[in-house]
Amino acid sequence: MLISEIGEFGLIGRIKEGTSLPRNDVVVGIGDDVAVLRAAGGKYLLATCDIQVEGVHFLKDKITPHQLGRKVVAINVSDIASMGGRPRYLLVSLNLSADATVEYTDALYQGLWEEAGRFGVDVVGGNISRSPTGLIIDVFLLGEAEPQGLLLRSGASPGDLILVTGELGNSAAGLTLLLNPDISCPEEHAGAVKAAHLTPTPRLKEGQLIARSKSASAMIDLSDGLASDITRICEASRVGATIWAQHIPISLATRAVAQSVGKDPLDLALFGGEDYELLLTAPPEKANELAAAVLAATGTPLTVVGEIAPSQEGKTLVLKTGERVPLEARGWDHFRQKG
Amino acid sequence: MLISEIGEFGLIGRIKEGTSLPRNDVVVGIGDDVAVLRAAGGKYLLATCDIQVEGVHFLKDKITPHQLGRKVVAINVSDIASMGGRPRYLLVSLNLSADATVEYTDALYQGLWEEAGRFGVDVVGGNISRSPTGLIIDVFLLGEAEPQGLLLRSGASPGDLILVTGELGNSAAGLTLLLNPDISCPEEHAGAVKAAHLTPTPRLKEGQLIARSKSASAMIDLSDGLASDITRICEASRVGATIWAQHIPISLATRAVAQSVGKDPLDLALFGGEDYELLLTAPPEKANELAAAVLAATGTPLTVVGEIAPSQEGKTLVLKTGERVPLEARGWDHFRQKG
Repeated sequence: MLISEIGEFGLIGRIKEGTSLPRNDVVVGIGDDVAVLRAAGGKYLLATCDIQVEGVHFLKDKITPHQLGRKVVAINVSDIASMGGRPRYLLVSLNLSADATVEYTDALYQGLWEEAGRFGVDVVGGNISRSPTGLIIDVFLLGEAEPQGLLLRSGASPGDLILVTGELGNSAAGLTLLLNPDISCPEEHAGAVKAAHLTPTPRLKEGQLIARSKSASAMIDLSDGLASDITRICEASRVGATIWAQHIPISLATRAVAQSVGKDPLDLALFGGEDYELLLTAPPEKANELAAAVLAATGTPLTVVGEIAPSQEGKTLVLKTGERVPLEARGWDHFRQKG
Repeated sequence: MLISEIGEFGLIGRIKEGTSLPRNDVVVGIGDDVAVLRAAGGKYLLATCDIQVEGVHFLKDKITPHQLGRKVVAINVSDIASMGGRPRYLLVSLNLSADATVEYTDALYQGLWEEAGRFGVDVVGGNISRSPTGLIIDVFLLGEAEPQGLLLRSGASPGDLILVTGELGNSAAGLTLLLNPDISCPEEHAGAVKAAHLTPTPRLKEGQLIARSKSASAMIDLSDGLASDITRICEASRVGATIWAQHIPISLATRAVAQSVGKDPLDLALFGGEDYELLLTAPPEKANELAAAVLAATGTPLTVVGEIAPSQEGKTLVLKTGERVPLEARGWDHFRQKG
């Protein structure tokens, strides 16, 4: 049976089932983006990894090595941010093809160090090997959190509001422009969405603030797309969700790009992925105050985009017309055959 | 400039130079196989990663998925063992080609879990992605150690004896047989050396015992080959080394394989790599007692293969004839153009 028949999340489920019960000191294990481990001194140790493979995650002529170095750190920091953790140490597994140059790897490491430094992360080791094809860069990031300052995917309850930081769809719009250089788009828009794709900003300060506020009930980062990532919260919390299409924050730039390629901007926002914004839930009586606090402290807006529903109601998308349609968990799945 | 012009260790040196000074809580950083980090409660946290890339580290028709799962865990456990640490938590970054099957990944994970369980390691997470070519499996292993029970590469002094566990060259002999199935070799020999290559046994108990004994001055695991790995100890300890060829423990099986392909068995032992035995140094007055203690507790022999020399004497290989030749740091380098 091909993996493509069960998909990425089918495979993860299979792996999760097959594994023996973890020990007491594993607070969160297989199935989450970040492992949470009980450490000495009453702290939690966080561990995550995320990879960039040439030809799968990036094309070498569309991203500079400096940008790639920054991005591979940023997407890992985003995972730690999604729990409210503090990133600390980073290991790099670098796999280079035979034609790799010193200039390329120098620029890659420069970007990597800069981004690591920006978030207080020490690059402490790794491994270098040869790749039979293109560049493969795998980053392992260790972080820490206080048990009382940790926010998981599993705490959402029916009635909670669903919020996101920033805007959704910019990364997908940027990728669209990079892959279709002939699309005409005003430069101020093009620059912003390309940057969102090439050098995403992990919402670290926002994530820490949200987790410490105790006002939110669940959180995840938006790596695969709203439609897919809300599914992760729904599964972990055993709830359903209603997403209100017209409330999803979509930039003018993303709307402009979508229009120029004849796509619905909503598709980019729901299914595009790689926004690395935070997706969280909070009881309605706490949501406004939380949004105001995050905006005041970081300048980042939080927008209510839906509501957690009872499990049996499943996931619903309310269109601008008021029509209610099932929300498919589409988004980035590395193996699923697309319908 | 191509990476192949400076080689793998040239690149690591460049990366090490470029990085800013790590903070106080980084005890061992870039340049070692294992990062050592000061953790809460006075403990040390160990972090390492090691990858298996199809077509570079393995061929899919030469190793079963179950063996591959075991091996990728074993080679990481070996790194933790080389410091005397205790492996704890493992993350898997799995990158699968489009034709990957559920049966293959099931067997891979089965091997991985079994080997992890054998060494008390919990598989706690990871990441799954697509590979544009073959299978890529990257493992990230966390461990722990007491500060007083940690053994580094940097403590060797002139006069210390150089010791190895087990036998050297078996893995290279096994690989030779796997790549040349027409070589005739008695089955009892063939089976042993193939197993040494396909499912190496990390010397975890031995490493912990050696580190706790306080009798050894430096230690590393033999992943690249004796000639290359003794160089790592020499560089870290700022010393030279003399290796006595006739004292290197080489099995009858490895001698038989070498003979059948017209190679010197010494080449397999010095430059073959992937033995995952331990290479250590100890003052002469402690070496015998240490070897006896390790043998009694684990059944694994320790053999004296040389002596640490002053730095200015460099590295020397004493041949069976008594002739002294410079010991080249040949061995597995992923990028160096072979002369």
